[in-house]
Amino acid sequence: MITAHRGSTLNTLGWQQEGALRMLQNNLDPEVAEHPEDLVVYGGTGKAARDWPSYHAIVRSLTTLKGDETLLVQSGKPVGVMQTHEWAPRVLLANSNLVGDWANWDEFRRLEQLGLTMYGQMTAGSWIYIGTQGILQGTYETFSAVAAKRFGGTLAGTITLTAGLGGMGGAQPLAVTMNDGVAICIDVDQSRITRRIDHGYLDVEAKNLGHAVELAVAARDAKKPLSIGVLANAAAAIPELLAMGAPIDIVTDQTSAHDPLAYLPLGIDFDDWENARRDPGFAQRSRESMAIHVEGMVGFQQQGAEVFDYGNNLRTEALAAGYANAFAFPGFVPAYIRPLFAEGKGPFRWAALSGEASDIHKTDKAILKLFPENESLARWIKLAGERVHFQGLPARICWLGYGERDKAGLLFNEMVSSGELAAPLAIGRDHLDSGSVASPYRETEAMKDGSDAIADWPLLNALVNTSSGATWVSIHHGGGVGIGRSIHAGQVTVADGTDLAAQKLERVLTNDPGMGVIRHVDAGYDEAIAVADNLGVRIPMTEGDNAQL
Amino acid sequence: MITAHRGSTLNTLGWQQEGALRMLQNNLDPEVAEHPEDLVVYGGTGKAARDWPSYHAIVRSLTTLKGDETLLVQSGKPVGVMQTHEWAPRVLLANSNLVGDWANWDEFRRLEQLGLTMYGQMTAGSWIYIGTQGILQGTYETFSAVAAKRFGGTLAGTITLTAGLGGMGGAQPLAVTMNDGVAICIDVDQSRITRRIDHGYLDVEAKNLGHAVELAVAARDAKKPLSIGVLANAAAAIPELLAMGAPIDIVTDQTSAHDPLAYLPLGIDFDDWENARRDPGFAQRSRESMAIHVEGMVGFQQQGAEVFDYGNNLRTEALAAGYANAFAFPGFVPAYIRPLFAEGKGPFRWAALSGEASDIHKTDKAILKLFPENESLARWIKLAGERVHFQGLPARICWLGYGERDKAGLLFNEMVSSGELAAPLAIGRDHLDSGSVASPYRETEAMKDGSDAIADWPLLNALVNTSSGATWVSIHHGGGVGIGRSIHAGQVTVADGTDLAAQKLERVLTNDPGMGVIRHVDAGYDEAIAVADNLGVRIPMTEGDNAQL
Ligand SMILES: NC(=O)c1ccc[n+]([C@@H]2O[C@H](COP(=O)([O-])OP(=O)(O)OC[C@H]3O[C@@H](n4cnc5c(N)ncnc54)[C@H](O)[C@@H]3O)[C@@H](O)[C@H]2O)c1
Ligand SMILES: NC(=O)c1ccc[n+]([C@@H]2O[C@H](COP(=O)([O-])OP(=O)(O)OC[C@H]3O[C@@H](n4cnc5c(N)ncnc54)[C@H](O)[C@@H]3O)[C@@H](O)[C@H]2O)c1
Repeated sequence: MITAHRGSTLNTLGWQQEGALRMLQNNLDPEVAEHPEDLVVYGGTGKAARDWPSYHAIVRSLTTLKGDETLLVQSGKPVGVMQTHEWAPRVLLANSNLVGDWANWDEFRRLEQLGLTMYGQMTAGSWIYIGTQGILQGTYETFSAVAAKRFGGTLAGTITLTAGLGGMGGAQPLAVTMNDGVAICIDVDQSRITRRIDHGYLDVEAKNLGHAVELAVAARDAKKPLSIGVLANAAAAIPELLAMGAPIDIVTDQTSAHDPLAYLPLGIDFDDWENARRDPGFAQRSRESMAIHVEGMVGFQQQGAEVFDYGNNLRTEALAAGYANAFAFPGFVPAYIRPLFAEGKGPFRWAALSGEASDIHKTDKAILKLFPENESLARWIKLAGERVHFQGLPARICWLGYGERDKAGLLFNEMVSSGELAAPLAIGRDHLDSGSVASPYRETEAMKDGSDAIADWPLLNALVNTSSGATWVSIHHGGGVGIGRSIHAGQVTVADGTDLAAQKLERVLTNDPGMGVIRHVDAGYDEAIAVADNLGVRIPMTEGDNAQL
Repeated sequence: MITAHRGSTLNTLGWQQEGALRMLQNNLDPEVAEHPEDLVVYGGTGKAARDWPSYHAIVRSLTTLKGDETLLVQSGKPVGVMQTHEWAPRVLLANSNLVGDWANWDEFRRLEQLGLTMYGQMTAGSWIYIGTQGILQGTYETFSAVAAKRFGGTLAGTITLTAGLGGMGGAQPLAVTMNDGVAICIDVDQSRITRRIDHGYLDVEAKNLGHAVELAVAARDAKKPLSIGVLANAAAAIPELLAMGAPIDIVTDQTSAHDPLAYLPLGIDFDDWENARRDPGFAQRSRESMAIHVEGMVGFQQQGAEVFDYGNNLRTEALAAGYANAFAFPGFVPAYIRPLFAEGKGPFRWAALSGEASDIHKTDKAILKLFPENESLARWIKLAGERVHFQGLPARICWLGYGERDKAGLLFNEMVSSGELAAPLAIGRDHLDSGSVASPYRETEAMKDGSDAIADWPLLNALVNTSSGATWVSIHHGGGVGIGRSIHAGQVTVADGTDLAAQKLERVLTNDPGMGVIRHVDAGYDEAIAVADNLGVRIPMTEGDNAQL
């Protein structure tokens, strides 16, 4: 069993290396990871290291790595240590990347079987997953946006229906209740339901679908927030709820549909899943069930419910299985998140390498003081402080934009430097961010200029973070939407309280969201052009004489 | 008309920026570029900048760029200028990259039409194309390897048959005659034949195929090197030569087959090409002609000729058109180049930013003195000095390996520092290199461990060069084999004579070929394992106790 080193004593030659080591270990903490014994962190098969020998070799390399050396990790296996310089990242990672014509699940699995690659998901292979809280804030933001768009700013008096209570999806019930709504959450895995209740993310478990609707209606009518788990297969339950006329206002889904082997088809028992997935016809059966599942969601939409895809590629698989109307409902990004991305806003997060909850409580207070005018941020930080259960190293997430992240990073670095915090912080983000991803079914779905599939942006993002002083930088393929469907980059920068870290943080936390601004300026979003104008983001095509976009 | 600035006076704020500016300009020098008016450098459609407004904005940005700022270029368009630091690259480029499921020519062309991308080829969009000489050395190495394998170390007394006298293919006739052989070179474009004769790369033009064979046989029998151009369509000429029983020993091809629109099908006149390519059926007609072309090549192979694919994806297109035996002959990399790659050997190149030929002549002498024991290098440098016609800024290429490139770079930097050279040098390489490319039909065809399609390696290569002090770094998709078929990275580092440049060169020119060594160690090549052992390349999986690969 792995847990991260804690406290202020180094196990490596410096805090930059120590940050990487502790965050890798933390990704595999049983409180954080879904299947730590298999190195699986979240998202079905997202791993922190390729295999145990690779894990141990990474730890060994980080332990002796000098402050001007860089460790190279290829799909979870350490493949080199090279002499670089102190401004360079200490670790560079490339996970799951394949050449376009070979970017499909069959080739990926063939290579995985040969021991040549692993699935890195977004923050699993890049060592900045922080448990369900990581996605909680994004999910909270999304449901807030749904509330603002359709229900007068609150989910009070509404019922949300969703499935999937895994690493990401487990955030849904709490995000709904934080917005004062009622949620019915379906999963085929009893252990997931139990776990979410244990962690305070889910309130109760219903005996069956009828019971779930009964509880939901009662809470809705009382305008009381409540989240209800129910054991069922979504592909059966959603059509059933539709048929019984359940009064659902909002429908979405976070089963692991991005990987057909991680979605349980109709007609297979949960206990037989492990064996059945070896059958070559399994993936096709999954897709056919997804088609039924999506058809049910579209049924609710036709009755007036707010329905959206939550980034798991469910619609594409349903379409592949022959359900032509699968794209009737939009993805959550164009529907709710794009305007935030255009301003460089996205999931900023940090973890206390000390292991002390008090370090996070202090940063919570500092953030509130730093951005006193930001009400939704204040609401989130307060609710999170009360309701978020830390997993592994204490951590916090909040969405900050261009011009905000650098301020927060510098303040945190000062708090380390002054001794206010017990040890340095690791400051990073999800790969789902404003300028770090190309993913035509999710983050870059329906871009204004049609540039959804252009993958230059995440690569430039990785290169510019590498050029700005990030502590580790990663480029991943696949992630939440699956092989062939996305390229994305991540960065984590350790605030160790030094002047050098301050300079690095200032650059990384400006340039990283800056990529989001310039990406959306280039695509023609007015929100982005305004931010660039107001905050001085340089756009070469508009500089000089006769400038043009 | 664009030519690079010359001399020792800066037009920018420093030599790192100046190097990027001059090399961009040099890529578009009419002596260097195939169609400078369209910004096309080589390889059919490989461009240096997306369009003229982008070109001018890049020049404007480079002119004012500070020594701690970085310009970001997205498929030939400048999209940002960000504050970084002096060890960071001055320019970061990502060209033609697409998410896997969209990595096809139709989507690429749609995006190109919308003005959202451009084709970067390998060294066109990364500003280190140096004209036909660039490929000459690689072609020379390949034909030397063919000679060594089959003909007792010399091509004297043999006839080589090939097609394509474009930017890359134009090197073939000279590479064959440098190996003392006879070459028949087919092209549909009279201007290409004339140009190669003008530049001394091609000796004579034959009136027709019969005449070409007559000239070839006479020269072969006299054991005299001779290269013969002939105007014809290869898809007609190759089968015709086979039918007439032409005594051919070696067959290959460098038409622009990677892009079906850049290959002239049978039955279309050269003059009608420009119009005909707009026809939606054109690409399919090209592929069908390629099938006939490849069938002819296989015919020669069956008669005992040495036949190989020269990296233009001709076999794949022929297979797509239904010729099942297209992969009967191997690619040139597994056949001849892989053993060199395993040792980190590849196309090292440098250009004199002064514009002075004497600077290159001095570096030629210095290289000979630095590696006195390397006979094939000495032979090449001598022949190149005599027979290579400089295009644009004088430049030189030679293949150097791990442990050699850094020595050469440091020596060159001293020559700049001491004033021996008139101005700094730009030191770079092709994207076709030992550790910088994933390309299952060319550079990574038939890897020992089956890892052909894994694209983590070129991405790590770009990240580690960005971390080591390269002046500009690029990540490209497509290149010589076409969209969907490769990912590759480039680097150029300016030797400006400073101590800082020396430190950067030492790191970049160690780590860059080092990627080739570790990539081939990981795939199980003995040559690579030996280099790593002998030269101390660190392989984390083999360090520490209980180490394993
Ligand atoms: N929206 C976002 O921001 C975002 C971000 C990252 C990932 N995702 C995607 O969301 C999905 C869920 O991620 P996760 O980390 O929670 O995955 P996970 O594998 O941890 O959990 C998936 C859950 O779905 C359940 N499930 C599978 N098939 C089912 C079925 N037929 N009916 C009911 N339940 C079923 C599983 O039992 C499991 O609990 C993934 O596809 C992921 O890629 C979304
Ligand atoms: N082997 C390598 O190291 C390497 C490296 C880079 C590129 N390449 C590939 O080699 C190919 C050639 O590159 P290039 O830069 O010379 O391209 P180019 O476009 O400059 O030249 C191609 C030539 O082929 C001729 N051509 C087209 N169709 C023909 C036909 N049917 N018959 C006869 N001639 C025909 C054209 O007239 C042109 O002169 C490309 O596919 C390129 O991607 C190989």
